[in-house]
Amino acid sequence: MKPFIKMDKEELKLVLDNLENEYTKIKEQNLSLNMARGKPDFDQLDVSMNLLDVLNSQSNLVKKMDYRNYGILDGIDEAKALFAEMLDTDNEHLIIYGNSSLNIMFDQVSRGYTHGYLGETPWCKLDKVKFLCPVPGYDRHFAITEHFGIEMIPVPLNEDGPDMDMVEEYVNNDDSVKGIWCVPQYSNPSGFTYSSETVYRFAHLKPAAKDFRIFWDNAYLIHHLYDNHQEHVDNILKACQEANNEDIIFEFCSTSKVTFPGSGVAALATSINNKKDILKHMTVQTIGHDKINQLRHVEYFKNLDGLKKHMTKHANILRPKFEAVLEILENELGGLEIGTWTKPLGGYFISFESLDGCAKEIVAACKEAGAILTDAGATYPYGNDPHDSNIRIAPSYPAMDELTQAAHLFALCVKLVSAKKILES
Amino acid sequence: MKPFIKMDKEELKLVLDNLENEYTKIKEQNLSLNMARGKPDFDQLDVSMNLLDVLNSQSNLVKKMDYRNYGILDGIDEAKALFAEMLDTDNEHLIIYGNSSLNIMFDQVSRGYTHGYLGETPWCKLDKVKFLCPVPGYDRHFAITEHFGIEMIPVPLNEDGPDMDMVEEYVNNDDSVKGIWCVPQYSNPSGFTYSSETVYRFAHLKPAAKDFRIFWDNAYLIHHLYDNHQEHVDNILKACQEANNEDIIFEFCSTSKVTFPGSGVAALATSINNKKDILKHMTVQTIGHDKINQLRHVEYFKNLDGLKKHMTKHANILRPKFEAVLEILENELGGLEIGTWTKPLGGYFISFESLDGCAKEIVAACKEAGAILTDAGATYPYGNDPHDSNIRIAPSYPAMDELTQAAHLFALCVKLVSAKKILES
Repeated sequence: MKPFIKMDKEELKLVLDNLENEYTKIKEQNLSLNMARGKPDFDQLDVSMNLLDVLNSQSNLVKKMDYRNYGILDGIDEAKALFAEMLDTDNEHLIIYGNSSLNIMFDQVSRGYTHGYLGETPWCKLDKVKFLCPVPGYDRHFAITEHFGIEMIPVPLNEDGPDMDMVEEYVNNDDSVKGIWCVPQYSNPSGFTYSSETVYRFAHLKPAAKDFRIFWDNAYLIHHLYDNHQEHVDNILKACQEANNEDIIFEFCSTSKVTFPGSGVAALATSINNKKDILKHMTVQTIGHDKINQLRHVEYFKNLDGLKKHMTKHANILRPKFEAVLEILENELGGLEIGTWTKPLGGYFISFESLDGCAKEIVAACKEAGAILTDAGATYPYGNDPHDSNIRIAPSYPAMDELTQAAHLFALCVKLVSAKKILES
Repeated sequence: MKPFIKMDKEELKLVLDNLENEYTKIKEQNLSLNMARGKPDFDQLDVSMNLLDVLNSQSNLVKKMDYRNYGILDGIDEAKALFAEMLDTDNEHLIIYGNSSLNIMFDQVSRGYTHGYLGETPWCKLDKVKFLCPVPGYDRHFAITEHFGIEMIPVPLNEDGPDMDMVEEYVNNDDSVKGIWCVPQYSNPSGFTYSSETVYRFAHLKPAAKDFRIFWDNAYLIHHLYDNHQEHVDNILKACQEANNEDIIFEFCSTSKVTFPGSGVAALATSINNKKDILKHMTVQTIGHDKINQLRHVEYFKNLDGLKKHMTKHANILRPKFEAVLEILENELGGLEIGTWTKPLGGYFISFESLDGCAKEIVAACKEAGAILTDAGATYPYGNDPHDSNIRIAPSYPAMDELTQAAHLFALCVKLVSAKKILES
């Protein structure tokens, strides 16, 4: 088929009639499909079942202390060593938490709001606090800053990272800008990895606000789809050290999409100053996180090599799903000039850009026919996508047959809504 | 020996000389003893080792959903049912969390501070916020309210609970009073259990502040020392329902001193209104807590009967320790009129009252001779015990021979410091 925009009205009307017939037929199937959330599927969860055999009643849990008892606020040394290898840092920069890196991020924002960082004024005492939000981005990040009444400023995310001219302009001049949300490798939802130059420029920011922090959510650090074709974001901790700018960074990661989401281990890496500041707060909040589950993970993986081998099994399950969706998009939408999409090498998402003003209708049409996508707009602060064009596709969770059904339906809805939009214009 | 106060100076000086000789000898032993924190001992932790065998790679973790995956913000139904039995309530009043009830309490105070309860003004926007603190009480409670700059007002804790005249006077008239910390059964450190009348009066409070809450930390709910001689605090949730005052209560409990501290499961019980309000906040904070560990606990205990049988094993380990300390106190201090102490039927502590102005010196003397006690003053807000008389004794953690050594040393230090004080006066 030729591009919709190059068809004359009669030709496009005919196409639309056919699409509508097809859509009606699909609706009659009463499908129930879901491509909304970045959840591992059943087979991926099965990959980690042996994690549950690592510790049992015969295990020795008395290491540097009795790990069954209270204590060790910042996590066990063994877990620090594993995360230190993952993040290419050392134990003293790490705090190991419970099961949720999102909860760590929430707590960091909450701490900025209630107590402030390193002696700076708590944000609740300020008239205005702002965060920069590379877009499209992760809805749960935006939900945290919105929850605390923080003004969110969208910054375009390009293939090499956020628009750094804009980031520098804001951060270096506006002392109400206290943070930026980043998913630096295989970004959510675009799958982009920040370039070395981007990381360098982040490390060399000269923030107007002493309590400005980069919230570096390295969620997909080891989540490659291919063995030989991988992207690796530069080490931001080292870059910040070299730039004498250590306190600027909070780096987050977890095993949520490595072992069991909700039953994994999460970590924060930052400067020694920040770590001390955080622990002063944490010592009031809790006596410590689940050391047995930390040990369970360490004994299961042993080291980074073990983690990488494990992640290959995930890749073998995820890769065919990404490829299936991308093939359907290419086959059914290629050349029509009604959408573009990313082809990520890792992470959990494909980002789709429709014609302006079509995303909400596409998602609604999918839903009406039985396929749930992430809400259109969710990838923007306040759910407000100014072009109404971005849609996040999450291929991981559905089984392959459901996934291909959903992808076909999605492609159909893109064509349907785009044809209507062009005819109306 | 007769009461110190009834001895003449010469007689008491002679006693003091002997005590000082004994103390010098003990110091030469370079002891390293610790009666500071309410931690289970090694044998108590061993009681729960089979918890680690309950789930393994062959287990079915797909129940109402796949418990290995993301989801279920308020905890799995099976865990709610277990805690509902413990707290004599039902599933819809419960939220099941991660490993730390202290963290739940912290988060509730933090939420009051940042967002407010049920639409009321966030505390950070108010000039003055106060909490009532029954004393002696739990230092970690006081640390939370102090951390948020909340003014703490001590209220005497009697054998039947806090001085309710004073509680009613404050709560029903001062709208800056937003909460009260309670350990209603086997209180920390006194071991007192609130009477039915006290519970009734709590449930019938008519707070001046709509967002006043009772922080009911039922930490020792099933932590009895004796089979046939137990105390059971009345059900505050039911009492509040009957008083049409449901929203007034947050009840906390956990398995920290049931299975493994730090690797257990914690829960909050409250009204349906409060639960909805909390979940609105939690949905921004996390995707959910560790469902696998929740299931592990449920499958291990099955029900309240399983829990009770398990707690009997703890009692059999703890009871001889409490009895050993109490016997030493009675043998060595009985009749001297230089101190009184509680004889709890459950919980983790014995509360000791020295002569006025002696607690700090007693704790310091113990430390100098190698026995760590909880800091004197810790049982009061801001560490400020106005009479400098309360000392918390935690008999659980040391092995029996170390415990008896520490208790002897403690009794010696009480005599030494008291004799000096009387001679100086």
